[in-house]
Amino acid sequence: MPQNDQPSSAFDVATAVRRAEGPVLVADLDPTWEVGGGILNGGYLLSVAGRAAVLDSPHEHPVAMSASYLRAASGGPATLTVTPGPAGRTLAHSLITLADDGGPVITVQATTATLGDEAPEYSEPAPEVAGPDECIDMAEHADKVPVPVQLPGLTRHVQSRLDPATALWALGQPQEEPVLRAWVRLADGRPADPLALLTFADVLPPTGFALGRTGWAPTVQLQVLVRALPAPGWCLVEARSSEIAGGWVDEDYRVWDSTGRLVAQSRQLARAARQR
Amino acid sequence: MPQNDQPSSAFDVATAVRRAEGPVLVADLDPTWEVGGGILNGGYLLSVAGRAAVLDSPHEHPVAMSASYLRAASGGPATLTVTPGPAGRTLAHSLITLADDGGPVITVQATTATLGDEAPEYSEPAPEVAGPDECIDMAEHADKVPVPVQLPGLTRHVQSRLDPATALWALGQPQEEPVLRAWVRLADGRPADPLALLTFADVLPPTGFALGRTGWAPTVQLQVLVRALPAPGWCLVEARSSEIAGGWVDEDYRVWDSTGRLVAQSRQLARAARQR
Repeated sequence: MPQNDQPSSAFDVATAVRRAEGPVLVADLDPTWEVGGGILNGGYLLSVAGRAAVLDSPHEHPVAMSASYLRAASGGPATLTVTPGPAGRTLAHSLITLADDGGPVITVQATTATLGDEAPEYSEPAPEVAGPDECIDMAEHADKVPVPVQLPGLTRHVQSRLDPATALWALGQPQEEPVLRAWVRLADGRPADPLALLTFADVLPPTGFALGRTGWAPTVQLQVLVRALPAPGWCLVEARSSEIAGGWVDEDYRVWDSTGRLVAQSRQLARAARQR
Repeated sequence: MPQNDQPSSAFDVATAVRRAEGPVLVADLDPTWEVGGGILNGGYLLSVAGRAAVLDSPHEHPVAMSASYLRAASGGPATLTVTPGPAGRTLAHSLITLADDGGPVITVQATTATLGDEAPEYSEPAPEVAGPDECIDMAEHADKVPVPVQLPGLTRHVQSRLDPATALWALGQPQEEPVLRAWVRLADGRPADPLALLTFADVLPPTGFALGRTGWAPTVQLQVLVRALPAPGWCLVEARSSEIAGGWVDEDYRVWDSTGRLVAQSRQLARAARQR
């Protein structure tokens, strides 16, 4: 299992869960996986829950994870309570509550299964995007961002190279469609796996950034489907919104691996950032 | 609230929940809302859960519902246990378990809010599709389907008119892409509302039908987002799969109302029907 091959990976350490007394698991949420203002990234929290989901499951991989985000968390000691559901040869269900000192942070419905190496019968091709080396390194271009954005901790843990076609916002030029694309990989060099894909499925800035709205868009409910084991190398992530209305926005992610295989999908409902 | 305006609607009767002793709610699952073999439709079950979600919520509408489908159900007496989560002025969370005589059927994470009539700031336009009267009435054309399909009960409760462009499968001509489109409405004449949209977000045949695979594709996990209050009239539903691999398939729904407004989105992970 990839998550055990490289125990010194920063991602593995930050998402580790271990047994405590009774059925409860414990974790130390790393405050540096934050998206601004010390608020932990929702994808990071889901990776922690994903590790709890597979710990006692007969299956290796989180293939469907639906989480309700009850309140923001900023790191520190946490507990994970796993309530097993039906389990069979193909898949197993469980319900996970991740709580910190202030109470429940997220509740997660998890489905685990064991993904193989079968070629897809049908797979949506990846969009045409320039390679990672021709894309924009956000960390190198932070000075060009027109608003006083302090790059959040998440951008140090997950390297991202923005597709120039959807990065005009970073140069102060809003685009018409709420879509962002970037190549991403873990900064610690650890290859992506289903647990890392849970983070990648919520790793980009809010799609509102593309329209020039650089406010935070807190996640309310997020579903991630992991569809295949990713090949080594960069993953291409696309986030797109279909509707912004009444203070609500959806964000729809697709993640392709370095071979162009669709490896994950997610959709979240979030509160929309206020129009600037 | 629309669900109370027409108490004699067949949909309202079939999805009704009422208080029993203590915090538990009861329902009578209607066995005729089935998709074949007496298996109840997943969207119908979610509408029942949606009614439970709003019953004690400070908010009127289910806006995000994520359900794990633990086992198939075929109708009869059921209980709904609602565990309230954090509730505020904007939204409220709860966790719902729907069980029948055999035990839990679905667990649902529900987010409720109150949708208004604000015009969207951004909304993905509906695809160009012929009007309902130029589309194919599945009930009228059942004899043309090349396999011995008995139209399931669901098709009597929800009228559907198939877009000819994605209905070649019904004439024995598989298409290349796993996408289906249809106009739908409740057969009882009741206008659509957020509760009905929960059913519409899982109402079409499996997308595999488009490829000529007419097997059942049981839902494993389904998330529905309700984005707006639908206008009266037919709703346009599109279901599309992005990947079929290793026995798994995703189905991604978008629902537009008669004015072309995007009113709901859903995504589910399902077991893929075997290739014929």
